[in-house]
Amino acid sequence: MEKEREEDLTRIEGRNAVLEAFRAGRTVDKLFVLDGCRDGAVLTILREAKKQNTIVSFVKKERLNQMSETGQHQGVIAQAAAYAYSSVEDILSAAAEKGEDPFIILLDGIEDPHNLGAIIRTANQAGAHGVIIPKHRSAGLTAVAAKASAGAVNYVPVAKVSNIGAAIEELKTKGLWFVCADMGGTVMYDCNLTGPIGLVIGSEGSGVSRLVREKCDFTAAIPMKGNIDSLNASVACGVLAYEILHQRLYQRK
Amino acid sequence: MEKEREEDLTRIEGRNAVLEAFRAGRTVDKLFVLDGCRDGAVLTILREAKKQNTIVSFVKKERLNQMSETGQHQGVIAQAAAYAYSSVEDILSAAAEKGEDPFIILLDGIEDPHNLGAIIRTANQAGAHGVIIPKHRSAGLTAVAAKASAGAVNYVPVAKVSNIGAAIEELKTKGLWFVCADMGGTVMYDCNLTGPIGLVIGSEGSGVSRLVREKCDFTAAIPMKGNIDSLNASVACGVLAYEILHQRLYQRK
Repeated sequence: MEKEREEDLTRIEGRNAVLEAFRAGRTVDKLFVLDGCRDGAVLTILREAKKQNTIVSFVKKERLNQMSETGQHQGVIAQAAAYAYSSVEDILSAAAEKGEDPFIILLDGIEDPHNLGAIIRTANQAGAHGVIIPKHRSAGLTAVAAKASAGAVNYVPVAKVSNIGAAIEELKTKGLWFVCADMGGTVMYDCNLTGPIGLVIGSEGSGVSRLVREKCDFTAAIPMKGNIDSLNASVACGVLAYEILHQRLYQRK
Repeated sequence: MEKEREEDLTRIEGRNAVLEAFRAGRTVDKLFVLDGCRDGAVLTILREAKKQNTIVSFVKKERLNQMSETGQHQGVIAQAAAYAYSSVEDILSAAAEKGEDPFIILLDGIEDPHNLGAIIRTANQAGAHGVIIPKHRSAGLTAVAAKASAGAVNYVPVAKVSNIGAAIEELKTKGLWFVCADMGGTVMYDCNLTGPIGLVIGSEGSGVSRLVREKCDFTAAIPMKGNIDSLNASVACGVLAYEILHQRLYQRK
């Protein structure tokens, strides 16, 4: 997975190219800088990275050489999103434009770009107005995710935030309720999922983190008749998103 | 390697998949563990291995990487007897043993082993009694599919048939009704999906083939509010399988 993810990110190498990318306003997911390298040009790049809240990793020369496709990285390699991120405001505006209660899907650490893509696709079809992902420990809008979204990435705004918990707090002030998908919760058919809602989906490995779960207003469980723990994350998201759509369409039978 | 993967299905990779294999009572011949890896999940696996008298080898990362077919071994690879296919009769027996109306998922050409694995996982959780796949032009029970199933492959019988259409005809004589997932159909909420049922899911690229669709009793559509054509095949299967479970649990409100 790691390999694939890295292969499909857009890579920008070399000092000028990286600096230009920042200045042109491109969203840079990660910046790799040669450990110990602190000359003027690199410091300028680091300042730009700080403005954008880009994650910076200081790495050994061998690592950079290995990552480099051009062989001329000059001590800096940036990983940029293939697609542009939106803001949380964009998502709320999308709902307002349609005259609908906001329906947002928040991903608490989905790491597989195929899952991210499938979820963006589901968001589009189930009538969600956008997807929010965290900056850290999350798949981003890479070429793999975009492909898995079957083009939905062009229609669904995806916002990247520093902290999912803080995003929930802020959206609560705008009237949204939050439901998180977890096994211990109320069976989803018995939850009222109408109104302005945020659906929180946990990571593939460990589900919704405690801190995020505690910020949610309620927990909805998908009935599990099987012998194993859980569903695939994008399938679980699909089942819950469609339960929300069902309740919206039929206004909770 | 592709060929080997298809024919020789003896490897189980990843922590959940390996642990599930032990817990489901599969015979694991050998267990390879990353040298120095001693966290909780790995210790649990080692305990299971000891119970079964499995030979354990602690190996270097390079060795594991080389052995890995999925690229996601997470430090553990088990060598087990190949995943055996079941028969359609086994699936019907599984339903009879539970005293339930049969609920079978038929895949008309799912080619991505990740999707096959996710669907087997969904089948387990949504209470389906088995999965039927065609011999040709379909992903099989490979290591990748098994891993994506998160161990569900140990619980869900998967039957391989020469022809999905013929399998439908035969199962109709045993009282099953068939619903296929397709856009032109009746919205799923308005379909009666109770009783002995077969759910037919089409291929990723082209959906359900005409010949198979014509054999189905009705077509159910997932509401699509979006700008694109369809959902990911395993997500679509999850949404429909859970609509079937919902109607079974609540006996069609």
